Amino acid sequence: MKRTAFFISDGTGITAETLGQSLLAQFENIQFSKLVRPYVDTPEKARSMVQQINQAAANDGYRPIIFDTIVNQDIREIVAGSEGFMIDIFASFLAPLEQELGAQSSYTVGKSHSISANANYMERIDAVNFALDNDDGGRTHHYDKADLILVGVSRCGKTPTCLYMAMQYGIRAANYPLTEDDMERLQLPAALKPHKHKLFGLTIDSDRLAAIRHERKPNSRYASFAQCEFEVREVENLFRKENIAYINSTHFSVEEISAKILVEKGVERRLK
Amino acid sequence: MKRTAFFISDGTGITAETLGQSLLAQFENIQFSKLVRPYVDTPEKARSMVQQINQAAANDGYRPIIFDTIVNQDIREIVAGSEGFMIDIFASFLAPLEQELGAQSSYTVGKSHSISANANYMERIDAVNFALDNDDGGRTHHYDKADLILVGVSRCGKTPTCLYMAMQYGIRAANYPLTEDDMERLQLPAALKPHKHKLFGLTIDSDRLAAIRHERKPNSRYASFAQCEFEVREVENLFRKENIAYINSTHFSVEEISAKILVEKGVERRLK
Repeated sequence: MKRTAFFISDGTGITAETLGQSLLAQFENIQFSKLVRPYVDTPEKARSMVQQINQAAANDGYRPIIFDTIVNQDIREIVAGSEGFMIDIFASFLAPLEQELGAQSSYTVGKSHSISANANYMERIDAVNFALDNDDGGRTHHYDKADLILVGVSRCGKTPTCLYMAMQYGIRAANYPLTEDDMERLQLPAALKPHKHKLFGLTIDSDRLAAIRHERKPNSRYASFAQCEFEVREVENLFRKENIAYINSTHFSVEEISAKILVEKGVERRLK
Repeated sequence: MKRTAFFISDGTGITAETLGQSLLAQFENIQFSKLVRPYVDTPEKARSMVQQINQAAANDGYRPIIFDTIVNQDIREIVAGSEGFMIDIFASFLAPLEQELGAQSSYTVGKSHSISANANYMERIDAVNFALDNDDGGRTHHYDKADLILVGVSRCGKTPTCLYMAMQYGIRAANYPLTEDDMERLQLPAALKPHKHKLFGLTIDSDRLAAIRHERKPNSRYASFAQCEFEVREVENLFRKENIAYINSTHFSVEEISAKILVEKGVERRLK
């Protein structure tokens, strides 16, 4: 059985997609073909959506599932006229919320809202710049300004994690690659010692690491399984010896790793 | 009136927070104090949450609003025993979805799910690396592999947008800064000409640009309003002359800019 799912919004569609993906993930045995349709913000675009939805219904032999956060009522009504099974996210929750809060929502008066664009802009950009400027141990003299410093072997996922935390949470995260030198002496590099309380370790399964390194430097010693296994083992020893909290990134997404690090280190996000 | 809102999950909490933030944004006149609590995954943590919720209720004189995506039923029941007003996101939608799909969800059988961690990992890392390697016009000989090339004056928001599109959508986005040279000649740099169909322009209000540049180089000519105004005007002229689609980033978040670019250029995301 194949079902089609649409995530439709007159805004970015992020809420419709995030919620819809989470809900569909609960149905493991059904294969969904997923279509994200942001900025459906005119009657013409809404009518074109109806065509796409009805086409999918005809192809699948089943009603497509529609997750929508369309604020404009006229547009919502056009989409509701399609053959899809509509999960109207805002409508479902705003009525009880209005009652609890004793206030009317902008939704019911048909006003749309964007993500808080500018309040956080500078904080966010500063955090992204910090992650870029302090990537890969390139510079260590700004560690006093860091919220966190990720450490681990080369290619274990430090950079994407730092960038994600910067973008999503405004966290200033530096990262420092532990190299063979550090491992052979089994000690923390001098630049990291004064900031030990900010350190968090990432580790990774050796075979996964070898595969990732192989993409960058095929058939190198650097990418060999033996080398990866050695580095991972030694770094984990170092984490344990130095009492640095760490997680194995192999089976987690960047979102999960980032959320776990913040909980573990008790670091507060800077974006609200 | 101040109300407290909790976003609680036994996972990352991303769904609870995304939906909760969207819903609360519809109540403009109420000030919310927002607390994100991911990985509430043991009875002890759940009981500690109940204490925090009840404390907030006592402080505010109002029930806190709770948005939760807790999959584990025992933990959910503990939290439900608090004095909060609970919006149980999964429970609300999974019953109608189960009926429509004719299948039981993992939720009703108490099984939890993580974000698709590994399927997309390589795609995502490759895209982030591409954005980093092709940032700021640093290298132009890989533009044939780019999905998009953002162009605009220095500090108009190109880098964060490219990184966001890479992280979120797996899009390979390069960026190239247009400098005074290009403006005075009012023409596209040679490196960009063969890839004109991939170009998308970012522009920004001059006073905003001046403020951003001032953070990096205070009191420089580069950061002066006159210089910013000149560059923005000339770049917009260039976009119009060359027929390059562009948007003004001033009043939009990185999420909004990214979603608009993908719609406008018709570029398909690589992460599903």
